[in-house]
Amino acid sequence: MEVTRKNFKDCLSAVYSAIDEADFLAIDGEFSGISDGPNVSALTNGMDTPEERYAKLKKHSMDFLLFQFGLCTFKYDTEASKYIIKCFNFYIFPKPFNRASPDIKFICQSSSIDFLASQGFDFNKVFRHGIPYLNQEEEGRVREQAEERRNQQANGAATPSYISPSSKGPAHVPEEHKDFISRVMYVPLMIIFIDVLKGVGVSRLETFQRKLIYQTLNWKYPKGLHVETIETEKKERYIQISKVDDDERKRREQQKLEKEQEELNDAVGFSRVIHAISKSGKLVVGHNMLLDVMHTIHQFYCPLPQDLQDFKEVSMCVFPRLLDTKLMSSTQPFKDLIPITSLAELERRLKLAPFKSPKVETAEGFPRYDTAQEQLHEAGYDAYITGLCFISMANYLGSFLTPPKAHISPRSKLMEPFFNKLFLMRIIDIPYLNMTGPDLRPKRDHVLYVTFPKEWKTSDLYQLFSAFGNIQVSWIDDTSAFVSLSQTDQVQIAMNTSRYAESYRIQTYAEYMKGRRQNKDVNSQPDQSWGEEGWVKSPTTAGTTGYGYKGYRPGAPMGPVLYNYTLAATLGKRSISPNQADQGAGEAQATDGWNQSSHPDGMGNKKLKTDGVPPFLYST
Amino acid sequence: MEVTRKNFKDCLSAVYSAIDEADFLAIDGEFSGISDGPNVSALTNGMDTPEERYAKLKKHSMDFLLFQFGLCTFKYDTEASKYIIKCFNFYIFPKPFNRASPDIKFICQSSSIDFLASQGFDFNKVFRHGIPYLNQEEEGRVREQAEERRNQQANGAATPSYISPSSKGPAHVPEEHKDFISRVMYVPLMIIFIDVLKGVGVSRLETFQRKLIYQTLNWKYPKGLHVETIETEKKERYIQISKVDDDERKRREQQKLEKEQEELNDAVGFSRVIHAISKSGKLVVGHNMLLDVMHTIHQFYCPLPQDLQDFKEVSMCVFPRLLDTKLMSSTQPFKDLIPITSLAELERRLKLAPFKSPKVETAEGFPRYDTAQEQLHEAGYDAYITGLCFISMANYLGSFLTPPKAHISPRSKLMEPFFNKLFLMRIIDIPYLNMTGPDLRPKRDHVLYVTFPKEWKTSDLYQLFSAFGNIQVSWIDDTSAFVSLSQTDQVQIAMNTSRYAESYRIQTYAEYMKGRRQNKDVNSQPDQSWGEEGWVKSPTTAGTTGYGYKGYRPGAPMGPVLYNYTLAATLGKRSISPNQADQGAGEAQATDGWNQSSHPDGMGNKKLKTDGVPPFLYST
Repeated sequence: MEVTRKNFKDCLSAVYSAIDEADFLAIDGEFSGISDGPNVSALTNGMDTPEERYAKLKKHSMDFLLFQFGLCTFKYDTEASKYIIKCFNFYIFPKPFNRASPDIKFICQSSSIDFLASQGFDFNKVFRHGIPYLNQEEEGRVREQAEERRNQQANGAATPSYISPSSKGPAHVPEEHKDFISRVMYVPLMIIFIDVLKGVGVSRLETFQRKLIYQTLNWKYPKGLHVETIETEKKERYIQISKVDDDERKRREQQKLEKEQEELNDAVGFSRVIHAISKSGKLVVGHNMLLDVMHTIHQFYCPLPQDLQDFKEVSMCVFPRLLDTKLMSSTQPFKDLIPITSLAELERRLKLAPFKSPKVETAEGFPRYDTAQEQLHEAGYDAYITGLCFISMANYLGSFLTPPKAHISPRSKLMEPFFNKLFLMRIIDIPYLNMTGPDLRPKRDHVLYVTFPKEWKTSDLYQLFSAFGNIQVSWIDDTSAFVSLSQTDQVQIAMNTSRYAESYRIQTYAEYMKGRRQNKDVNSQPDQSWGEEGWVKSPTTAGTTGYGYKGYRPGAPMGPVLYNYTLAATLGKRSISPNQADQGAGEAQATDGWNQSSHPDGMGNKKLKTDGVPPFLYST
Repeated sequence: MEVTRKNFKDCLSAVYSAIDEADFLAIDGEFSGISDGPNVSALTNGMDTPEERYAKLKKHSMDFLLFQFGLCTFKYDTEASKYIIKCFNFYIFPKPFNRASPDIKFICQSSSIDFLASQGFDFNKVFRHGIPYLNQEEEGRVREQAEERRNQQANGAATPSYISPSSKGPAHVPEEHKDFISRVMYVPLMIIFIDVLKGVGVSRLETFQRKLIYQTLNWKYPKGLHVETIETEKKERYIQISKVDDDERKRREQQKLEKEQEELNDAVGFSRVIHAISKSGKLVVGHNMLLDVMHTIHQFYCPLPQDLQDFKEVSMCVFPRLLDTKLMSSTQPFKDLIPITSLAELERRLKLAPFKSPKVETAEGFPRYDTAQEQLHEAGYDAYITGLCFISMANYLGSFLTPPKAHISPRSKLMEPFFNKLFLMRIIDIPYLNMTGPDLRPKRDHVLYVTFPKEWKTSDLYQLFSAFGNIQVSWIDDTSAFVSLSQTDQVQIAMNTSRYAESYRIQTYAEYMKGRRQNKDVNSQPDQSWGEEGWVKSPTTAGTTGYGYKGYRPGAPMGPVLYNYTLAATLGKRSISPNQADQGAGEAQATDGWNQSSHPDGMGNKKLKTDGVPPFLYST
């Protein structure tokens, strides 16, 4: 269902009840851009720490506008063994509520806009009929302002700037307006003033003239006149003056108050939908959803906190239970079956064996999406197929049970390992952001930080390190990159050979991070040392923070999911030689895979692989 | 005529000939926003110097997008005594030309977007079909890149990053792609590869797979195969492989080269129209056109220079002759006849006596605008009525001649005083930016710089200065403002009384400016002292810089136009008490008006009014 400013109020109760009855929700956002940084590779370096990545996304992505929000609700009908779905496609635009309300500026990235345009995105619908919104701080401020205005009016005080300091009657009327104002003064009391204005030959009034009229009439007729500025669709402003008695005046003021309250609720607008999702505590599914979560909080709740830990806490308040289908599909047992995890490819793959397309039915009165006629990059459609993907994968897990089950509820324990872990795009050795605990901390002692002249290309780095076997390059900028060696014991040799080099410089990752922390650059985290193991074990406190999701035993073990990636990422502005993939293809095969633990109770606290080679992430 | 990417190339020759034959051109731009600063009053302080204003506009306005450009050409038909007009309404969008070309980010301001939306602006047309453009630097870079690519290909070198460092055949094929690639290898030579890909079950290829195919095929079939990536409308990329002999291969490469050249010209796109306007040297008329000029140069020529003087020089290269109808209409003899100078009001006023609506006819094949059905804020329409306003005002000047003339050519000497002076919005005492010489330098020794607690409102300032007669307040920010006293001799008294004040602080304007210059803040101009007179006389070098406009005697006197404003401005976030208008209404009546010098030769070098009261600018 398409929802704009025009039908938002009429749809709201349908949205609320859809959320209320749902077993889970799927969401997706479309943005006016992705990164305002110099280039995307700078935004997503393969060696980012979670803190760095969060800081970069916050800095370079939050000035874009989330202008389409897809919400698809899935309710399981046990008798019919199928899901009943309701999809909403919201158009969103921060139309200023009044002259005092925030005038949001947002960035558009040409490539993103061009891409959406090529997919038939309707910008007119966004900008003409988008649903407004206020975050909680703005809402508070606007409500305060309205209150203040009312109090002032109740005390008979006009806006201070309208008070003449001399307090001698109305403000001085400049010479050339005197004739105009005298006509206003001596026109007998009238019902609609517009005609008079037309008579005076001034159909559109300047601010200053409006002010003069207000003052003159309030002074001349302190009671018995109701003066109101009316703004037309075309933003032309008229003054409407009516003759009223005291009772009528009060009635009108009451009316005005009610109207104001309603307008205020209208201004909060789309944020009310997010509040409802949040309050429901339902599982919220998204595909590669970190940016969706960040934008949603940023636009509809509060400015994002500086610190990653604070962001996680805010996120868990707003969305107590998240599941990222990109992360799920790149995790065993799905990883081996699903080579490409982009949403469109995932959806296609999950239609084929061993997966089964879920049985779904669109609720009555809701328009149907057809997956054969793809409408990718419409947020409502993307949310819809994200939900389908989730169901297919969830049900596949049921085939490992004894006896196998065809339907797996989103509340099943089988889902637990996937909860509250958001996919991290293009980080080589940290697959996800752990929203309910500390993040994985891969050992990076095989990684070198290299600086070099800006003419250098990837091939120069390959040449430089040709003696050290396969390497992996993660570009930082034109003159620096991380180079991962395949064997840690080569690091010292590489360092030694570089000692007298003039054109380039090598630091170990540890040295580099120390320097950064000393410079108090990007990363404002306290000094933390790297674990002795290849992976720092994710503490079992994850899952015990007690967010009160129904049907869950708090404290159930939710240890980290094991990751074994078999293909190296292709990263950065300059593509990496496929040679890097050698090791990934050969050595890092899953030996400790998910499917060995098909029984729910066996899933927690897997021991992590700690051999020297970091798992690689296939990052498309 | 509506021009988008779809019909741009077909229209271009019509645009060129319209410019060529025109007597003058009128332009207008629509932007995605006005100011990204905290508020507009900070952007346009009534006491800005021209340098400050330019710096602010450059800093806070250039990140918006000029996305609609109106051009209306006016050609006088002497026999029929009327203008033949051709209007073009261009939709403009920086669609990225290729992956290497700049990915422009631009800001949208909600209030501006909302306003345009309410006027029926078609955003889909902009974003889907906008004409691309490159500024001169970008054009140079893109042409260089293309050249480089061609040279590399000619030398048989692929992109360096694609070269495997080991140089042993094609890059390593990761395990899970081996099957896929082996199919590619052993498929017999084929004409169209897409079918095969479909056969393999991969209709859309990942970047990495594409790279593998390229490498594999180039290695296996060094000659005899033409491999090309094809991108569909939906941004899906296919590889097309054809079997070719040597001649065919060369022919195709030649074809590809030509296509590349054409694509490059397409990428320069709308900038070609601006180049044509520039080369024509024709008079370009606009309404309140400073931002239009700045955006045009910024988007289609080069980043704006830091320094105002450099900006003036660049502007005069791009547009050798400018005329601003807002400035013209707020100058005598029009000022007294035209109370409101917004474009819509101006157009309405100029339909009435003593003005005459100009006789115009739309050229054949061009759609007609109807001024009765306003289409305000469509750039083409705004350019059209700007041209009409200019003609009406120009012809009105003819009535002062002996004998009176009904038609005044845009090349007439009567126009000279209005050339190359751009209206300065809301500066109290500097009506225009003088593009061909130093700016007016009003004496500001009656102005005080006041800092105070952020709770203060305009009324507090009125109260504070109540002993000093009428004042005028120009807000700078929450805690500071300029306060203009009506009499300079009161300044010292005000300073003395403030000596022991704790809550506020007063500086003279001169002290304030000195402090700013020492802080090397915004204004990077060399130290300049204020003239002894109220106005520093604009040197007669204005008009002698020899920009070679046809029909002009260089060196003809073009002294400053006299300004006498009778109404105070209403400025800033907090409205000013109308009391300020006292003096404007009473004292500053025109006594030395334009209409005393109806003979062209009498127009130059008017003596400027130098009595204590600065002229006020009616700034709507």
